[in-house]
Amino acid sequence: MIATTVPDVATAAGTAASAWAATPHHHRARALDGIAAALEDDVTGIVEVAAAETSLGRDRITSELARTTFQLRLFADLVREGAHLRTVVSRADPQAPVAPRPDLRRTLVPIGPVAVFAAGNFPLAFSVAGTDTASALAAGCPVVVKVNPGHPRTSDRVARLVTVALRDAGAPDGVFAIVHGFAAGAELVSHPAISAATFTGSVRGGRALFDLAAARPVPIPFFGELGSLNSLTVTAAAARDRGAEIAADLAASVLLGGGQFCTKPGLVLLPRTPEGARVETELARLVAAAPAVILLDDHVHDGFAASCRALEADDRVRLLAAGGVAAGAATPALYAVEGAPLPDVALEECFGPAVVVASYADDAELLTLAGGLPGALTATVHSQAEDSDLLTRLVATLAPRVGRLVFDQYPTGVAVDPAMQHGGPYPSSTDPRFGSVGTAAIDRFLRPIAYQNAPPSILPRELQN
Amino acid sequence: MIATTVPDVATAAGTAASAWAATPHHHRARALDGIAAALEDDVTGIVEVAAAETSLGRDRITSELARTTFQLRLFADLVREGAHLRTVVSRADPQAPVAPRPDLRRTLVPIGPVAVFAAGNFPLAFSVAGTDTASALAAGCPVVVKVNPGHPRTSDRVARLVTVALRDAGAPDGVFAIVHGFAAGAELVSHPAISAATFTGSVRGGRALFDLAAARPVPIPFFGELGSLNSLTVTAAAARDRGAEIAADLAASVLLGGGQFCTKPGLVLLPRTPEGARVETELARLVAAAPAVILLDDHVHDGFAASCRALEADDRVRLLAAGGVAAGAATPALYAVEGAPLPDVALEECFGPAVVVASYADDAELLTLAGGLPGALTATVHSQAEDSDLLTRLVATLAPRVGRLVFDQYPTGVAVDPAMQHGGPYPSSTDPRFGSVGTAAIDRFLRPIAYQNAPPSILPRELQN
Repeated sequence: MIATTVPDVATAAGTAASAWAATPHHHRARALDGIAAALEDDVTGIVEVAAAETSLGRDRITSELARTTFQLRLFADLVREGAHLRTVVSRADPQAPVAPRPDLRRTLVPIGPVAVFAAGNFPLAFSVAGTDTASALAAGCPVVVKVNPGHPRTSDRVARLVTVALRDAGAPDGVFAIVHGFAAGAELVSHPAISAATFTGSVRGGRALFDLAAARPVPIPFFGELGSLNSLTVTAAAARDRGAEIAADLAASVLLGGGQFCTKPGLVLLPRTPEGARVETELARLVAAAPAVILLDDHVHDGFAASCRALEADDRVRLLAAGGVAAGAATPALYAVEGAPLPDVALEECFGPAVVVASYADDAELLTLAGGLPGALTATVHSQAEDSDLLTRLVATLAPRVGRLVFDQYPTGVAVDPAMQHGGPYPSSTDPRFGSVGTAAIDRFLRPIAYQNAPPSILPRELQN
Repeated sequence: MIATTVPDVATAAGTAASAWAATPHHHRARALDGIAAALEDDVTGIVEVAAAETSLGRDRITSELARTTFQLRLFADLVREGAHLRTVVSRADPQAPVAPRPDLRRTLVPIGPVAVFAAGNFPLAFSVAGTDTASALAAGCPVVVKVNPGHPRTSDRVARLVTVALRDAGAPDGVFAIVHGFAAGAELVSHPAISAATFTGSVRGGRALFDLAAARPVPIPFFGELGSLNSLTVTAAAARDRGAEIAADLAASVLLGGGQFCTKPGLVLLPRTPEGARVETELARLVAAAPAVILLDDHVHDGFAASCRALEADDRVRLLAAGGVAAGAATPALYAVEGAPLPDVALEECFGPAVVVASYADDAELLTLAGGLPGALTATVHSQAEDSDLLTRLVATLAPRVGRLVFDQYPTGVAVDPAMQHGGPYPSSTDPRFGSVGTAAIDRFLRPIAYQNAPPSILPRELQN
């Protein structure tokens, strides 16, 4: 393991901040491209290590590495282009309404060193060189990654590649580092040199770090992506016309990657009609046929088991189907509950291969159920053309609760795109105004600065005439 | 006093949220225009009440009302135009890199009901119908204003006009309300229906409310504008070439409005040269000649007195000049301190007609002093062309600490403009990524939402083809 201490790396990040902020944008872009190239050059080694210490398999690791290098280059291109700075230039105007206006020019500057808490479920794309690191470096912020304990050797290997690539690109010392260990996390988020933090993980762990960030003498923004229920509603017409197809695709979405995606559908709202019952039956058949799955690590395994126990302990929740059983592996599960209001346990994320089906009697009960949903990354609706009135009311109820609305598709699979929003109302995110996927992720690490009546020599390049 | 309870108005705001969010943008714009017109129609009455219960005088009140109506119309125009939604439309692309891309469309939606803590020093422009209220309503958020105790009757009068104008424009019931009283503030920021809060006031009061907002079961963004030191540096060359002019304009900036602006220069860095000493002497002469001033209210008066006592209690701080004395009024004051590091008391905002002059021996000591400054809304530098190397280094040191850099002008007078940034690192703001003046103020109250594969009938107008 790469051995570093939080005070050392945080202080070094603080020292590197001004030099990295002052590094021309195209140099920063070249450094990100260099990291991408270094990861690609080591694809065999990375896949070997990551496959050995996670349960994800070589194909998934390989495609995740491709996503990771794509993201690094996406942010390199973004920084080269410069539109993310949203510059505004207002020339002096002695006749401006209300009061004469001085020459005012506004751009965005890096917020300062960022602490990145790596995710466990994406050992590359949301880990040491993942989207948080890429977007923070692109913004001009040094990065200290708190490594996820689920893949320490992958983290060390990637960290070495990142460090060398940054050095080769002429980046200042201290601009990037990693730390290991649970205690390092709390120490990092509390360190005065750190200006922002990102986190992907559990509600409990994320909230504890959020509380530390808010309680600092100088509070800092904390971008936590915690738990998300990701409801999926099937209308009676959709169950009637596409029930079998929906059941098959939904089961695939729930079971994809062992159910270990933050956008896994966790609650399915089905009509209490014969066609709705057939969707449920088909889902039960598919879940029962699913093999046991080795989860990411013991921590995730124990969390999944605890969630299942909590569901089974509730009088109103029935276990409808259970999949394969194997030592040390998780058994896929389908639970059912009827009518509004749902028990609290059915409104919490169950991270792993399980899903709860809740049935509704009519549109009114569906809207009541939708109105009781917690904040989430996504909500999905499967409907038919004849549902247009219901759909309008349903969307009005769901939209205030989510960051992304999905229609007749599935929420897993999060496109890396400027139009993506991966972040939603609490507890899915600690700040729903930002997201962690796609180019908008850079917005988290920039703050505005205005130059008033500045001599041209002082102005950043993007604000010059 | 308009008598309302927090649970009543917060719940009503929560109920109004979806209807106001769904109100077409041009209707929202018309409502803002209607508020502006209603305030203008009552200019005589508003000025009379505000002049009677504040010490600001009719001219200032009248010009502040013009600023207030200008702001309301600025946000109306912004909402009509729609660029603040920063929409992105990405059509489906089966050949997209990494993975096929679904149709994705991103816009911004209102964050939900906003609690506005009105400022004491701007009874109109940052109060009941001020920029926080205007930008939140423009964003589509209901508003509950916690009235500032310094101008309750003005607040009630403006609130009645706002309420009627919104009703006349067809806005839903509950979209706007005010509450009075200290206890109502804490209750409001903790109420589950409230989704964000803004605050302008003291570090102590603002931090207490920030802590409440962060400690909620569902934490909410809290935009506090707390205390700002606003350093102003004069180089040796500027003191030599423009010393008398700088002293006169600086004294005017410090004493403007009784020093009760959040951008008042609070610390002046002067060279320890004969020309620097002359600037200090001239400043002392002007401060000594300034009359005593009635401050906004007893709370501000007591705070100013406490700040002055703290400065006078420090061994290293000397009182250089004191202005007029009058019963119940504040005496303008000029303090001096030498060299780095400055005592803590010289690094805190003193809200009112006082300023501290700190002298530096050379460029190195100036840069050391600048490097020890706290986060602030602004920093100002007066220099000459020959200072270009020093200026570059000084700006590199100051920029990470402020939201606005002012050159050869003065920080008081905050232009209402898209290029303005009125917000800086803590403690000047609780979140330096946002500002409270100009069109960018609306960004605080919007969050992104993405529509994936949505039927056209469901898409918000701005996302349709």
